[in-house]
Amino acid sequence: MIDQRKLPSKEVYVRCRTAKDVARAIRTMVIRGAPAIGVAAAMGVALDVRRSRATGTTQLATEFYRTCDLLAATRPTAVNLFWAIERMKRVFAGGMRLQALIDAEAVRLHDEDVANCRAIGRHGAGVVPAEARVLTHCNAGALATGRYGSALGVIRAAVEAGKRVAVYADETRPFLQGARLTAWELVRDGIDTTVITDGMAGSLMRAGMVDVVVVGADRIAANGDVANKIGTYTVAVLAREHGVPFYVAAPLSTIDLSTPDGSGIPIEERDAKEMTYMGASQLVPEGAAVWNPAFDVTPASFVAGIITERGICRPPFAESLKHVCDGNQ
Amino acid sequence: MIDQRKLPSKEVYVRCRTAKDVARAIRTMVIRGAPAIGVAAAMGVALDVRRSRATGTTQLATEFYRTCDLLAATRPTAVNLFWAIERMKRVFAGGMRLQALIDAEAVRLHDEDVANCRAIGRHGAGVVPAEARVLTHCNAGALATGRYGSALGVIRAAVEAGKRVAVYADETRPFLQGARLTAWELVRDGIDTTVITDGMAGSLMRAGMVDVVVVGADRIAANGDVANKIGTYTVAVLAREHGVPFYVAAPLSTIDLSTPDGSGIPIEERDAKEMTYMGASQLVPEGAAVWNPAFDVTPASFVAGIITERGICRPPFAESLKHVCDGNQ
Repeated sequence: MIDQRKLPSKEVYVRCRTAKDVARAIRTMVIRGAPAIGVAAAMGVALDVRRSRATGTTQLATEFYRTCDLLAATRPTAVNLFWAIERMKRVFAGGMRLQALIDAEAVRLHDEDVANCRAIGRHGAGVVPAEARVLTHCNAGALATGRYGSALGVIRAAVEAGKRVAVYADETRPFLQGARLTAWELVRDGIDTTVITDGMAGSLMRAGMVDVVVVGADRIAANGDVANKIGTYTVAVLAREHGVPFYVAAPLSTIDLSTPDGSGIPIEERDAKEMTYMGASQLVPEGAAVWNPAFDVTPASFVAGIITERGICRPPFAESLKHVCDGNQ
Repeated sequence: MIDQRKLPSKEVYVRCRTAKDVARAIRTMVIRGAPAIGVAAAMGVALDVRRSRATGTTQLATEFYRTCDLLAATRPTAVNLFWAIERMKRVFAGGMRLQALIDAEAVRLHDEDVANCRAIGRHGAGVVPAEARVLTHCNAGALATGRYGSALGVIRAAVEAGKRVAVYADETRPFLQGARLTAWELVRDGIDTTVITDGMAGSLMRAGMVDVVVVGADRIAANGDVANKIGTYTVAVLAREHGVPFYVAAPLSTIDLSTPDGSGIPIEERDAKEMTYMGASQLVPEGAAVWNPAFDVTPASFVAGIITERGICRPPFAESLKHVCDGNQ
């Protein structure tokens, strides 16, 4: 997998040979993005099953569930991770010829994610005007998914449909996924991209320079509350203040009907060093505290629509999300 | 002057011997903060008048106005710069024993700024509850003024009055004045300080963790519209959304009655490199555009009060600002 921490200055690939390698890659953010870490976890499970020297099913099962636990403990917020591991467990529980089945399931999960992103793009392109300035936050692109992207999938599909799209990318502190990753992806695709700091979004919207906001998600509760990268809620408040529609693009695997609302979504707090240092530069003096939640929750009332591979869910989300998920179990 | 670009990791002082040195220091942000650059410009004028070898008043006047132009061309938004230069010009126009008068005026301007900050603190401390979490943006502290600070002056005066104050400092991208400077000042004073990224302010307010916002200003129009560091408007929108009062602390020299409203305030755009690099780290890929306005305008309707050295102006600001400025000419 490409090391997302090194972008855009270096394209370095990290080779994962074991689930432990994958777990470390997820924890240290070599790879991030809710659908992408789901796919990676599935691949990690498959790697360890393939490598196993277990001599019987009991031993293999012990190893398998330990591998699943290891991968599940990497990050708490994105629900796709747990969804992917559950899928692998279902195959394992029912399995004969386990290694082949587990391998195939991981590959299928990846391929489905790519197909889902393309479907999200097709459904979502309609919310992008023919000449549009689109604001996005963080990176919900090819790097965050199997390929193509969810929020960036919507943008790519709009461009492929012949629309003239200019993208504003929030740089997305502290990890700078917008500046480093979203801009890198879009520039490679030849899409007009302007990076702003997170604090500029208000000024930009007040100047009438944003037509629509599209972001990804890490977990969507049953009522439509959306956990996504820290700063998303601030964008949502600004969008409503300025009458700009705010859309969320995510595969069904991001929807968690078992969590009634956003208050039940665990929010990961990450190491203060992500904020206090940039390379060798010290940004915050000793003695100052730092608060570093990786995600925030945007209440459903701020969301115009949730774009999935099966179409766009509209308010009231309690109904539309349940409806779109029916038949997915 | 202390080199604010190097804080908090290094305390390096830059010695300015000429107005040209001072102009360079202002332009390159060795010194920043509206009142501080006003004081620095006055000192710069005094330095060149003291050094002059002019043999007659005509030659001295030519040099003097050239020096004023040089300093006035450094940065466009903060009005204190032009106000300070105008004060020096008035002394020059009326002057006998010019060098001594010019020197004295620059020192008086500095001392008045310090006294103004203390008065701003006295008047403003009342808006800070007895147990308060105060959010501030950028740095409106000792580093941005002659000493003590405007927004941080309010916080310092509240602490001196025995209130229990915890401060949340927006890191304030791209230049990180909040993380580097505000946190550095407050930690030295033993005031409880937590740094957040700009995008976290929404989540923080939604969690009920902010009681009041106090920021500085670079220029306040006659109707109360406030130009301040980029990101301030975003904070103001969030504050209103969450019912948190939003105060601006600034000396009268920041009020520009000749500009009717915020649309007339020139907004400086700075070099893209401030956003695309951090030290040697490249943050934005080649090919992506960057928008880097240094300031934004917060409409008067978002402002609960403007704290000056003569008291707190309340809406309607067209009247209260005119009233507080009367007798100041």
